[in-house]
Amino acid sequence: MSDATGVEPFDAVDVIRAKRDGGAVPEQALRWMVDAYTRGYVADSQMAAFAMAVLLNGMTRDEIRVMTDAMIASGERMSFSGLGKSTVDKHSTGGVGDKITLPLAPLVASFGVAVPQLSGRGLGHTGGTLDKLESIPGWRAALSNDEMFAQLQGVGAVICAAGSGLAPADKKLYALRDVTGTVEAIPLIASSIMSKKIAEGTDALVLDVKFGSGAFMRDVDRARELARTMVALGTDSGVSTTALLTDMNTPLGLAIGNANEVRESVEVLAGGGPADVVELTIALAREMLALAGRPDADVEAALQDGRAMDAWRAMILAQDGDPDAALPAPNETHTVTATEGGYVTGMEALPFGVAAWRLGAGRARAQDPVLHAAGIDLHVKPGDQVTAGQPLFTLLGEDASRFDRALDALDGAWEIGPDAPQRRPLVLERITA
Amino acid sequence: MSDATGVEPFDAVDVIRAKRDGGAVPEQALRWMVDAYTRGYVADSQMAAFAMAVLLNGMTRDEIRVMTDAMIASGERMSFSGLGKSTVDKHSTGGVGDKITLPLAPLVASFGVAVPQLSGRGLGHTGGTLDKLESIPGWRAALSNDEMFAQLQGVGAVICAAGSGLAPADKKLYALRDVTGTVEAIPLIASSIMSKKIAEGTDALVLDVKFGSGAFMRDVDRARELARTMVALGTDSGVSTTALLTDMNTPLGLAIGNANEVRESVEVLAGGGPADVVELTIALAREMLALAGRPDADVEAALQDGRAMDAWRAMILAQDGDPDAALPAPNETHTVTATEGGYVTGMEALPFGVAAWRLGAGRARAQDPVLHAAGIDLHVKPGDQVTAGQPLFTLLGEDASRFDRALDALDGAWEIGPDAPQRRPLVLERITA
Repeated sequence: MSDATGVEPFDAVDVIRAKRDGGAVPEQALRWMVDAYTRGYVADSQMAAFAMAVLLNGMTRDEIRVMTDAMIASGERMSFSGLGKSTVDKHSTGGVGDKITLPLAPLVASFGVAVPQLSGRGLGHTGGTLDKLESIPGWRAALSNDEMFAQLQGVGAVICAAGSGLAPADKKLYALRDVTGTVEAIPLIASSIMSKKIAEGTDALVLDVKFGSGAFMRDVDRARELARTMVALGTDSGVSTTALLTDMNTPLGLAIGNANEVRESVEVLAGGGPADVVELTIALAREMLALAGRPDADVEAALQDGRAMDAWRAMILAQDGDPDAALPAPNETHTVTATEGGYVTGMEALPFGVAAWRLGAGRARAQDPVLHAAGIDLHVKPGDQVTAGQPLFTLLGEDASRFDRALDALDGAWEIGPDAPQRRPLVLERITA
Repeated sequence: MSDATGVEPFDAVDVIRAKRDGGAVPEQALRWMVDAYTRGYVADSQMAAFAMAVLLNGMTRDEIRVMTDAMIASGERMSFSGLGKSTVDKHSTGGVGDKITLPLAPLVASFGVAVPQLSGRGLGHTGGTLDKLESIPGWRAALSNDEMFAQLQGVGAVICAAGSGLAPADKKLYALRDVTGTVEAIPLIASSIMSKKIAEGTDALVLDVKFGSGAFMRDVDRARELARTMVALGTDSGVSTTALLTDMNTPLGLAIGNANEVRESVEVLAGGGPADVVELTIALAREMLALAGRPDADVEAALQDGRAMDAWRAMILAQDGDPDAALPAPNETHTVTATEGGYVTGMEALPFGVAAWRLGAGRARAQDPVLHAAGIDLHVKPGDQVTAGQPLFTLLGEDASRFDRALDALDGAWEIGPDAPQRRPLVLERITA
């Protein structure tokens, strides 16, 4: 972006001031800001002040598009146009027990659609899709671009590690936002997520934007705003994008962890599994297939007749995993039982996520290992009737030493009352361009 | 602030979030933030995000007091209590041709009051008081604390370089604000100015808060808000503080530069000088003397009968300056004349300040030298009647090579019209606790 003499065409302080004073930053200046930050010419302190101004003053739809575009331009851009079939991706903003990618990718791929799921590593209580799949003996997350293309051509579904070449500006900016209290800026969240998805080159994208205690966005209105922002951004960038706004106040399914979430995903692929996991998998599959030109695809049938399971087995085998191998099992377990009878009126997602994380299912630092067998198995869900002494959930661990801290996190996390709670819809809204 | 184990009692992200979300930061957390930033534990990027949140969300009067207090606590604190006379200081937010400190300090000191004027170096178009005085052969700005005390005891007035030990946190924070678009935050401006003045240990303080095109605050409402904030802060910290809100749309006096401003100051001390410089000097002297318990002091008389001049000569001599030495003279001059007759209806302070700076009267970088003879001499002021061909102002320089760029800055900076302009008051308001 700098001219031949090395003179910078803009000044970071001018860009910061424009946003600070409530104006829109002109396109070329905003592109320069992202590029110059990636090059190290704009300092962390300057980008931090800019990010805070964005958080407090917002960005126009045009600015968000330019910001996203500039982050894409910071790295490589992939293309699946040579595949000869349409590609559709799904992105979830993350939640407790969210293993939906695992059954969803092979289910959608079983209809002849290519599903590239390039994932990052989990940090914090929400865990990561790659961590879950690494419970499967032999399975590997790192694929070359050639391997990924071959797998999309053949199996149709691939879940693998995103290369570091996609939107490197986002990586730098995200790390900065994390330490400067600017993570929550919707324009920056939207451009962070979408820059990687657009750079990846998918034709279509379905977003699972979660709200509630176990979600990144606690508040449904902010989740809706984020969903609308991302749908507009995808649309503006030529990616067919829709979003579902889904409830993350309660853990999804009965398994929270890694190996146990794989087990639960396989149950869904075998035509069983918890009702909420099945419901969300089907809802997202329908969205994805509709965007891929298959609105009438019978997704329930593919779960019942083994087609989705066949795609799953092929997907795991293609990445050197053994779909028939036993999954890691915990050395120690601790089951919590009901002290009184009644209805389960609530199970808060966040404390269950934190407890699973404390048991070792997630990592505190990027270099930490994950304990694949650690986590929590729920035996009941909100709305279920229980009697005193009935098991509510079981902590799974490598050793018992972590159980106390996990139980601390769970203090007050569930409730049993005399009346059945009102059922809340899992999928609250569908958001389209 | 950290406890014995080295564990930090607060988290910077929590502090940033509190301010970001519009709340007040608890006292201990705010003190920690300033201390931890000074120690280098809180990063520049974190303080930059915090400063932007302060700029956009403001601070309560209590928060500003705590912030100021924390900056004072970062360095040494002086005390003039051993002097046996009351001390009163003046601070100006800076303007074009603002040499008021030079006649004011000896004028007030001539009434037996101690006037410690600890100054910084000028950066940008407003120039610095120390740079002006360094035009005087032999004069030195750097004094030891003992020398300063002795001079306050004897002469009564001292204008010298502020030691770097006062509020070092402010120095670090100011440099950061300068590159992150957060200079304009009123709570941060107020705490920056006042932390140094309070740490200096003066009993009383008069603020000259300027508004207009040549001032740091263009807008009178923001200047008023800054003045009120600083008066409240001084009062809360036990320093008797008042402020005058003064017009800086037109250069102050007829001299803009260094040596020529000293010459003009000496004219005022001799009982002459431009009306506006005399008016502001007298107004500020009355404020200072009132705070020092001398509300009835006859300041005009002290200018007329040589008492102020005697104090000036003693002050210059005490710092090894020769008050009788010839001041540096320019090698080259260029006079601009009126192309038509009429009234001078306006002379914009900012372009005159920029032009003087381009001639070498100010510095671009801290390490740059100042050309003491460079600057601009005005021959007329707004309201004066002129005929075609009459000299309006003269550029003063070391060589003629800088005149073109100075004249570029002055393009459109003055106006001549058929009607006399309305006179604007120089001192708009007096602000007290």
